[in-house]
Amino acid sequence: MYIFMADTQALTDYFENPGLVSRNVWQLAEDYAACGIDFEKNCIFIQSMIRALPEIGMYYMNFVTLSRVERNPTVKTELQSKKFARDIPCGFVCYPIFQAADITAFQATDIPVGEDQLPMLEQTNEIVRKFNSMYNTDILKECKIMASSTPRLVGIDGQAKASKSLNNCIFLNDSAQEVANKVMSMYTDPNHIRASDPGRVEGNVVFDYLTAFATDLAEIEDLKAQYRKGGLGDVLIKKRLIAILEEFFGPIRERRAKVDPKLLKEMVFAGTKKANIVADGVLSQIKEAMFLNFR
Amino acid sequence: MYIFMADTQALTDYFENPGLVSRNVWQLAEDYAACGIDFEKNCIFIQSMIRALPEIGMYYMNFVTLSRVERNPTVKTELQSKKFARDIPCGFVCYPIFQAADITAFQATDIPVGEDQLPMLEQTNEIVRKFNSMYNTDILKECKIMASSTPRLVGIDGQAKASKSLNNCIFLNDSAQEVANKVMSMYTDPNHIRASDPGRVEGNVVFDYLTAFATDLAEIEDLKAQYRKGGLGDVLIKKRLIAILEEFFGPIRERRAKVDPKLLKEMVFAGTKKANIVADGVLSQIKEAMFLNFR
Repeated sequence: MYIFMADTQALTDYFENPGLVSRNVWQLAEDYAACGIDFEKNCIFIQSMIRALPEIGMYYMNFVTLSRVERNPTVKTELQSKKFARDIPCGFVCYPIFQAADITAFQATDIPVGEDQLPMLEQTNEIVRKFNSMYNTDILKECKIMASSTPRLVGIDGQAKASKSLNNCIFLNDSAQEVANKVMSMYTDPNHIRASDPGRVEGNVVFDYLTAFATDLAEIEDLKAQYRKGGLGDVLIKKRLIAILEEFFGPIRERRAKVDPKLLKEMVFAGTKKANIVADGVLSQIKEAMFLNFR
Repeated sequence: MYIFMADTQALTDYFENPGLVSRNVWQLAEDYAACGIDFEKNCIFIQSMIRALPEIGMYYMNFVTLSRVERNPTVKTELQSKKFARDIPCGFVCYPIFQAADITAFQATDIPVGEDQLPMLEQTNEIVRKFNSMYNTDILKECKIMASSTPRLVGIDGQAKASKSLNNCIFLNDSAQEVANKVMSMYTDPNHIRASDPGRVEGNVVFDYLTAFATDLAEIEDLKAQYRKGGLGDVLIKKRLIAILEEFFGPIRERRAKVDPKLLKEMVFAGTKKANIVADGVLSQIKEAMFLNFR
């Protein structure tokens, strides 16, 4: 598996604060190690160090019209939001194109992303088909989502997406106390005032998280039934969620404590070296197809 | 001086015909040699082989808004033309940004271009100021035009710009016969029917070319006076222009005949190697300023 720290993509949104972006690179690498991703079996690398990516992205820009990227849901939302309006930077408008470069540079076919990323994969496959057909090649591969059983995790505030930029998520490096505080603040059913009241589990963040993280789903079905009927308090289900999350976070914290920053760096640089070789190989075939193989 | 064959930029307009683009690279290198550009003193290289350029361009995309590039006169004209409409490719919309990368990657300060390129230099300087101020650096240098005495050469059809894509120019590798034919077809004064009629020299392509290429400008002033008064035929001034152009083209043809394609390639690849070193050095400082110096 190829896994990267997407610093150049982060810059399309945070170019005014590049120091934050580069610090997050090492934070994220540590998160990967803490989660138990094996740096020997997988290729973990830093996006901005892969030279083929901007080059491939630049060529793909010829294949995507402005009106097409403006129809991308993520870009569209930003275009309509107050933050950018028409002052949206070209880097942000075009990032779905560069994401296509990220995917195809490794001939990746199965992409483990949340379902909110589906428009990005569609854009990628459009480019793949257009490029392969125009340049009479099969170097680029179509990709598909590897969806998990939880293709989208809601934010702790009940918003559609848990997101770092919205700061409505539990972070992998949160302490036990922070996790507990966040769970206690979670959005439940606003009409569920007393424990004895019947409550709704749909749109109830605590139950969404219980379903996503519990290993014993039968237990969660029981809790849901009780909650619907009435007689199960919010504090009780939140305490249960805290315990379940601790089972999830415990091993992550243990592995994090053992991460050697120096070794981590070395492994990331080794992964980056390998990723450069792979992406350069694909780029070379892309340029061959475009007759840009000067020798 | 750094001089390149702009193949990646050409692709933003001709991505459907990449074979044409790569053939033109060697044609253009031959033109440079034929014109007497010294490949030892100057650095001549192929744009698509310089790895820092797409990378720098991609970072600059964060500094330029979509509305800003849409106001670029060249992009604006294309947006309004029938060719693209809203189906304009992102690569074309953003090429002024990548042109800023081409210029700044070599810290170029004096740019020998036609005056139609002034909006590109303005865009470049905007990026330079914004980048230097945001990242508290002086690595990027502002640039200015090195205008010749003929900042714009009209097309042989009288259109504002002689352009390869409009096919209204005399090519450096045209034969003497082709040059003569093109001059004989030049747009003059449509009201100058008989030689004895008074004629206009303003907007008269033949006089524009006489002014641009003659070494004896006093002679041209005399011809203008005669033409205005009447009594000077179009065929006569065209024949004079053909002779003057032959003085210009003669040495170019002689040098072209001596160009060794193998040696030309070697010199271009040597220039490309040197250009990569220079541009990589600037990129490295750009990334340092953005805290993307992972080590």
